[in-house]
Amino acid sequence: MAAPWAHRFAQRTKTAKSSIIRELLKLTQRPEVISFAGGMPAPEVFPVEKFKEACDRVLCDKPTVALQYGPTEGYLPLRQFIVDQMSRYGILASVDNVMITSGSQQALDLIAKLLINRGDRLLVESPSYLGALQAFDLMGAEYVTVPIDDHGLNTDYLENALRSGPKFMYVLPNFQNPGGVTLSEERRKQLVLLSDKYGIPIIEDDPYGQLRYEGEHKTPLFVLDRTNLQRDTGYMLGNVIYLSTFSKLLAPGMRIAWIVAPPEVISRLTQLKQSTDLHTSTFAQMVTYEVARDGFLEQHVKLIRKVYSERKDAMLRALRDCFPEEVTWTQPHGGLFLWVTLPKGVNSRHLLEEALRHDVAFVPGDPFFADGDKGSHMRLNFSNATPEMIREGVRRLSIAVAHELEHAEAGAVTV
Amino acid sequence: MAAPWAHRFAQRTKTAKSSIIRELLKLTQRPEVISFAGGMPAPEVFPVEKFKEACDRVLCDKPTVALQYGPTEGYLPLRQFIVDQMSRYGILASVDNVMITSGSQQALDLIAKLLINRGDRLLVESPSYLGALQAFDLMGAEYVTVPIDDHGLNTDYLENALRSGPKFMYVLPNFQNPGGVTLSEERRKQLVLLSDKYGIPIIEDDPYGQLRYEGEHKTPLFVLDRTNLQRDTGYMLGNVIYLSTFSKLLAPGMRIAWIVAPPEVISRLTQLKQSTDLHTSTFAQMVTYEVARDGFLEQHVKLIRKVYSERKDAMLRALRDCFPEEVTWTQPHGGLFLWVTLPKGVNSRHLLEEALRHDVAFVPGDPFFADGDKGSHMRLNFSNATPEMIREGVRRLSIAVAHELEHAEAGAVTV
Repeated sequence: MAAPWAHRFAQRTKTAKSSIIRELLKLTQRPEVISFAGGMPAPEVFPVEKFKEACDRVLCDKPTVALQYGPTEGYLPLRQFIVDQMSRYGILASVDNVMITSGSQQALDLIAKLLINRGDRLLVESPSYLGALQAFDLMGAEYVTVPIDDHGLNTDYLENALRSGPKFMYVLPNFQNPGGVTLSEERRKQLVLLSDKYGIPIIEDDPYGQLRYEGEHKTPLFVLDRTNLQRDTGYMLGNVIYLSTFSKLLAPGMRIAWIVAPPEVISRLTQLKQSTDLHTSTFAQMVTYEVARDGFLEQHVKLIRKVYSERKDAMLRALRDCFPEEVTWTQPHGGLFLWVTLPKGVNSRHLLEEALRHDVAFVPGDPFFADGDKGSHMRLNFSNATPEMIREGVRRLSIAVAHELEHAEAGAVTV
Repeated sequence: MAAPWAHRFAQRTKTAKSSIIRELLKLTQRPEVISFAGGMPAPEVFPVEKFKEACDRVLCDKPTVALQYGPTEGYLPLRQFIVDQMSRYGILASVDNVMITSGSQQALDLIAKLLINRGDRLLVESPSYLGALQAFDLMGAEYVTVPIDDHGLNTDYLENALRSGPKFMYVLPNFQNPGGVTLSEERRKQLVLLSDKYGIPIIEDDPYGQLRYEGEHKTPLFVLDRTNLQRDTGYMLGNVIYLSTFSKLLAPGMRIAWIVAPPEVISRLTQLKQSTDLHTSTFAQMVTYEVARDGFLEQHVKLIRKVYSERKDAMLRALRDCFPEEVTWTQPHGGLFLWVTLPKGVNSRHLLEEALRHDVAFVPGDPFFADGDKGSHMRLNFSNATPEMIREGVRRLSIAVAHELEHAEAGAVTV
């Protein structure tokens, strides 16, 4: 007997991209699987003792604040901390520009609710972050895409795409998810210039900006935008909304991230957040603040950079050693991911099934493309496995890749 | 110079009901104001020592689980705890029926996303919970309403309303917010019967069910539904989605609540939650579980019942002592609120302004009506002030009420 619910589900729920992959990735929870699939930080470097001290301090000093309802915008000292922190990267904001969210995913959900009418076209990178596409899809977005290369979003194709009048651009300039590539300084300037010329705002998603392992820090789009506009008009116009998070710097289990935007946008986002979850856990915000403050965050980020840099190098070396010539990959300067391109004809979902038989996992590339399948790719995460596990995982993966390459060639003959 | 954002806001953001009240209620944060406005638990009874112990235990025993990403459905031992807990109230479910949400407000947001197409009509009580209306409005809901009286939703008017084909009914059967009234056993049966007859599902929102201070426990709609259907068909059809929360039982600052629903609904809600905030804070879930387990929750709820019962009685007594005859109010048997009805002609927002001049606050009734202003009302919360403060607050409020009554009468003459 059929249950009465399925025919009641709203139109917007029919677009879910990733359910097949979700099902496959449930298999990665077997302990024998080496997973390059998630975007999980290394648990070995979680600052557990600092979290213990922070919980103690919060519950001794301010228990009735920590356990009570709090303001929708977030815990004020944490917002102030974020303002101070960002000023080191040239992002000049006040607490009125900062709202706390329950992870960056919620920032994407709120922005989708705020800006997207069903049928609105958005400009996204191809490929782009799957979680953002899911949040945008739910509010009925359609897409115009611009390809990325080793220097990030290819601005040569941008003006043409902007002429189609997208509602906004969604861009991950640093160590892009899934591409692992970084937008060059020159292209950043070009992007902000065109944003201004066409009046198309930018959502700058920057979860990994502080996790750079080599090369020079690049200027945030938010800063380029403000510098230009202040020079011209003396007024902070704010054509960029900036997102970041503590998930990759301290611990994702706390679900603490933030949005920087003009006050009128923050005020509207606050109303939306109120009807979405009232506010982010007061306790989690206060504990995060206590852990991060007094210089600990900077000191801890140095440790993370060291550990992840080794892991990235281990993965690049293993790929060079194990993978066949016809497979290529990006060379990230930071972040958590690299992006592997397989020869045409390899089905990345079949490859995942084969890889799981060898106890290794990754995320297939196709759901990262807003405009449908663009060849065969794997996203590999290097933050959540030790260098030894990475070497062993890439070895296993290379066996699966070799198997699928053979299979693809055989298939090509029979077609 | 105008900022470039306002004209980009999506259609759905234009409906925000409560911004004037939000602005007024910001004034309640002055320390001299006695506030009956929020729905805040009493901070004096937060089990702070238990939370300290729980944090210690979680961070000693399972730090890498607590600080890491977790499953979207929620922390399994907490879901199992909820299943066990609910079985005492006759709600028989398995972990596959239970999803953790970031407060009940998120449950409402997810249900709105899952079930509401723009223009869908919902059946709600008149008045109903403002936060639910906000979440439903955002997905474009329209409403058919059924009035409440001292025995809850008046089922005499229900069948007519159901004939208009609402997508679902949203009902708060216990100590309704804002009404403070409870649906009688007879009407519960009638409601479930009509739900079945017309094939209209029920969202049963039950944040206060365990906070009963007098009278007999009433059967959840979820239980009536399942009992009927199992008797008839031997199959758990599941026409009711049940919501509850730890916010009023332990601490709202953790933002831990839950949804009970058929597995096909949970599975879809899980996909939606993934694109909304990935998952609720792992740490907050684990700490809540550690606090609640081993009988502590039941023991603590007894204490809360005792404290809130005294406060409710103090408020009822103060209202009898101070308020004029032409003002009436409900007699709640539990929960956090009572509902005051003022003579026609009293403008409850003007009354709030006057009340704030006397350093006392409440929430005016009109935003709780999905179908527009239905007379003049105040929602009063009695959980967040001591009996002494309640007496003093009601005294101040009675002065403001007397002033507005005079004003209304004078106004009536001039019109």
